[in-house]
Amino acid sequence: MSKTNPGNYFEDFVLGQNIAHATPRTITHGDVALYTALTGSRFALTSSDPFARSLGLARAPVDDFLVFHMVFGKTVPDVSLNAVANLGYAEGRFLAPVFPGDTLSAVSEVIGLKENRSGKTGIVYVRTTGSNQNGERALTYVRWVMVNKRNPASTAPAPHAPDLAPAVSAADLALPQDLNFTHYDASLAGSPHLWGDYLVGERIDHGDGMTVEEAEHALATRAYQNTARVHFNQFTESKGRFGRRLIYGGHVISLARALSFNGLGNAQKILALNGGAHAAPLFAGDTVFAWTEVLDAADLKGRADVGALRLRLVATKDRPCADFLYRDAEGSYDPSVILDLDYWVALPK
Amino acid sequence: MSKTNPGNYFEDFVLGQNIAHATPRTITHGDVALYTALTGSRFALTSSDPFARSLGLARAPVDDFLVFHMVFGKTVPDVSLNAVANLGYAEGRFLAPVFPGDTLSAVSEVIGLKENRSGKTGIVYVRTTGSNQNGERALTYVRWVMVNKRNPASTAPAPHAPDLAPAVSAADLALPQDLNFTHYDASLAGSPHLWGDYLVGERIDHGDGMTVEEAEHALATRAYQNTARVHFNQFTESKGRFGRRLIYGGHVISLARALSFNGLGNAQKILALNGGAHAAPLFAGDTVFAWTEVLDAADLKGRADVGALRLRLVATKDRPCADFLYRDAEGSYDPSVILDLDYWVALPK
Amino acid sequence: MSKTNPGNYFEDFVLGQNIAHATPRTITHGDVALYTALTGSRFALTSSDPFARSLGLARAPVDDFLVFHMVFGKTVPDVSLNAVANLGYAEGRFLAPVFPGDTLSAVSEVIGLKENRSGKTGIVYVRTTGSNQNGERALTYVRWVMVNKRNPASTAPAPHAPDLAPAVSAADLALPQDLNFTHYDASLAGSPHLWGDYLVGERIDHGDGMTVEEAEHALATRAYQNTARVHFNQFTESKGRFGRRLIYGGHVISLARALSFNGLGNAQKILALNGGAHAAPLFAGDTVFAWTEVLDAADLKGRADVGALRLRLVATKDRPCADFLYRDAEGSYDPSVILDLDYWVALPK
Repeated sequence: MSKTNPGNYFEDFVLGQNIAHATPRTITHGDVALYTALTGSRFALTSSDPFARSLGLARAPVDDFLVFHMVFGKTVPDVSLNAVANLGYAEGRFLAPVFPGDTLSAVSEVIGLKENRSGKTGIVYVRTTGSNQNGERALTYVRWVMVNKRNPASTAPAPHAPDLAPAVSAADLALPQDLNFTHYDASLAGSPHLWGDYLVGERIDHGDGMTVEEAEHALATRAYQNTARVHFNQFTESKGRFGRRLIYGGHVISLARALSFNGLGNAQKILALNGGAHAAPLFAGDTVFAWTEVLDAADLKGRADVGALRLRLVATKDRPCADFLYRDAEGSYDPSVILDLDYWVALPK
Repeated sequence: MSKTNPGNYFEDFVLGQNIAHATPRTITHGDVALYTALTGSRFALTSSDPFARSLGLARAPVDDFLVFHMVFGKTVPDVSLNAVANLGYAEGRFLAPVFPGDTLSAVSEVIGLKENRSGKTGIVYVRTTGSNQNGERALTYVRWVMVNKRNPASTAPAPHAPDLAPAVSAADLALPQDLNFTHYDASLAGSPHLWGDYLVGERIDHGDGMTVEEAEHALATRAYQNTARVHFNQFTESKGRFGRRLIYGGHVISLARALSFNGLGNAQKILALNGGAHAAPLFAGDTVFAWTEVLDAADLKGRADVGALRLRLVATKDRPCADFLYRDAEGSYDPSVILDLDYWVALPK
Repeated sequence: MSKTNPGNYFEDFVLGQNIAHATPRTITHGDVALYTALTGSRFALTSSDPFARSLGLARAPVDDFLVFHMVFGKTVPDVSLNAVANLGYAEGRFLAPVFPGDTLSAVSEVIGLKENRSGKTGIVYVRTTGSNQNGERALTYVRWVMVNKRNPASTAPAPHAPDLAPAVSAADLALPQDLNFTHYDASLAGSPHLWGDYLVGERIDHGDGMTVEEAEHALATRAYQNTARVHFNQFTESKGRFGRRLIYGGHVISLARALSFNGLGNAQKILALNGGAHAAPLFAGDTVFAWTEVLDAADLKGRADVGALRLRLVATKDRPCADFLYRDAEGSYDPSVILDLDYWVALPK
């Protein structure tokens, strides 16, 4: 038997199967510093211990998307090593905050399987949960990917697509109990715009652009212990479809979120990930821009200090966003669009 | 009202105005490790907790220039987002040492304003102070920058240029009380040359060269949460004056300081920044070299264990420094010179 | 007297001489995070505090090769600044585990000297020991390098080559007392293959490839405070033998070890370094692949929970390892081979 892990093929997944992913990971101040250096994120809550304490936390929590990438990374060797496409996310919820020193582990449940007509691939839906060392859930989300079959001739399982919510309901959003924005200092946070200043339908051009280098996305993706080969192996990719290493889509999410500080500087805490599409690949040398549309606004149950905004975060490459480029008349993404992310975020009222 | 911060234009500054800068920043062991990896700094005081303890500190302090960059970075969104040139520094003093876990905040006072003849730009002088979470001043310095006017037709303010000292007086230099060099181990520090071994007028070629990559300066500059666009956005810069991203001048300072270890290995603590000029831009792929001239030597009040040297640190690009390249007969910098820094440093006696 | 350290030439070494190397170095969570980001290492013992605690340690230890590089880096300014080739390693033993917060210092003893026939260079053998802040030995190893003479006319010392073991004897291998694999969770570690599953003679293709960028190897090598000029100075190297910066051979070791996770996921702890050759240089843009041959298997004295494997780790560049490329019929390395490392590692039984 080969000692090398070939990854799972479509035939290896069983509906209802639970997968305990490898490599528990202690997230440290080192990971946090590197994340800041890779993204340029400036949100005060994750930058400053005293600022976090002024909001009731013991210290600065780890950036929500850093948590996401760490959990996601663990799933790759089991779920998507033989994936040909990352198709979507749904029902993502950020629960217990993660602090430096906490250790994340991840498990996934197979909640859907559907072979494609070609017989060469199938779609695998997993609900992944990342938990800390005390067993508290830090993050849960659904992801679906198109995975190669080992053998096109093998029998298809009974097709089952899970019933997924188009968005996390505002009523289900929850902030950590300790996190209280009553004494929020917007000046220190770097933006005067609070929850009530945003209007549904409003669009914000985040203005700045960030060029990505090979070393940067590779550092990020290795830090997450994400083993997807397309991000790292130029020898093989030079012979592949793009001739280039692909940048991990999660790095685009993090860059777009960091760019969104300019316009959303008080959007301190991600609450939920409703959905997302990696509309086109990003390559080293490309420059990422971003804009946001406010999709919805909601109160948070029992909270007068803070509210939620549902946002569409769109990232483009080599194309500033002053005109809020998105889809064409047929509904196809403009070729410059690389990310379409739908999420809920908390802002002080 | 646009949610995106356009930065301040010349007209937005008022003499005597105080600006509280955003994003308090907890500096961690992660930032320190990254700084070492980016610069290769080898000074023992900032490398080793036991070495720092042998000199009376509780643990290794954060590199002085890392503190400088963190404070400087905070000022960019308010002071220099619309700057066209960083003109100078003066009266910089490094005060309370910063340790991993400390949080830096910054405020600036506008101490000078002078519109340029063109009517398109003006010079803004700010005195910036970085303080820790206990309100102790860690760093104070003056910087002046040329900033675009929003509207060339707007009225000029009464011109006021502050009276700045050509150098911090030796009598004003101070070391942290706890820091005592009586039991200094020069062998462990890596250099036999103590304060008394340096002569005024002596020049030292630091010998080594360090090539800079795009990923490196961008990592550094994002770590400092410095948002100056010219460092990050190749899409826009490709159409600009140089066709390239500019490297943050502070990265040059850090590289030159790290190179200066070879010849100044006992120069453990920066005391003051008297002045500095970024004589020419640095671009990725260029190799930085450095040399030092000893400008002055001084005792430190009440201290028999340690003295101060005033140094000129010159960095060049793609040009070794064996001949101490500096200015031509007319006083212009040689085109290879990229940095001319005047600072006070403490060395054990 | 020049203040700049020119490094030692062959004439400067004396048999029996002890060299205390500079720059004690506190290794922090920041260094550990950066090492993970640079290598992608996924071994559970060094990734997770709770996993390390489940094996009896207080927290996750620092990766053994990170310890090696930190110690090695300290020796460069004294031992190999004027070296023309790094010839070999022997008798390497990993002793007290190193934890974040520990401080490493290094000393070397000159144990062999042999001038080469050309009269231009000589071979210097040193036994280097890295110790923590309590004086406990963390690592000891022999290295020999070819070093330039300052003056070809100078007299040769009496030749002395030390008697070096071809491999560390299995009887001399020791694990930290606290480290106990009785409650080992192989699923969490990410591999089902325990000590008894590996056969002597078995070969494992680690499958994945990792492309290296200039920024990456330079970050790593600066983090280790390794000052070998060939890794950093493109201006000078552009005129040199390869026209390129050379990648530190230790970075290749770390990448190959990280790649070896896929096939050796339970090889949690390096015990000994028997030997190693950097068969060919690696340059930025190249992609590293790796394979392993099991050379030997041994019990560890008094331990029923864990055994040792002696492994040959071979790394190649731009050449997948499915056919286990190694040496040709004459015994010369295939030109693709860049590393041939012989080491002992501990795996749970």
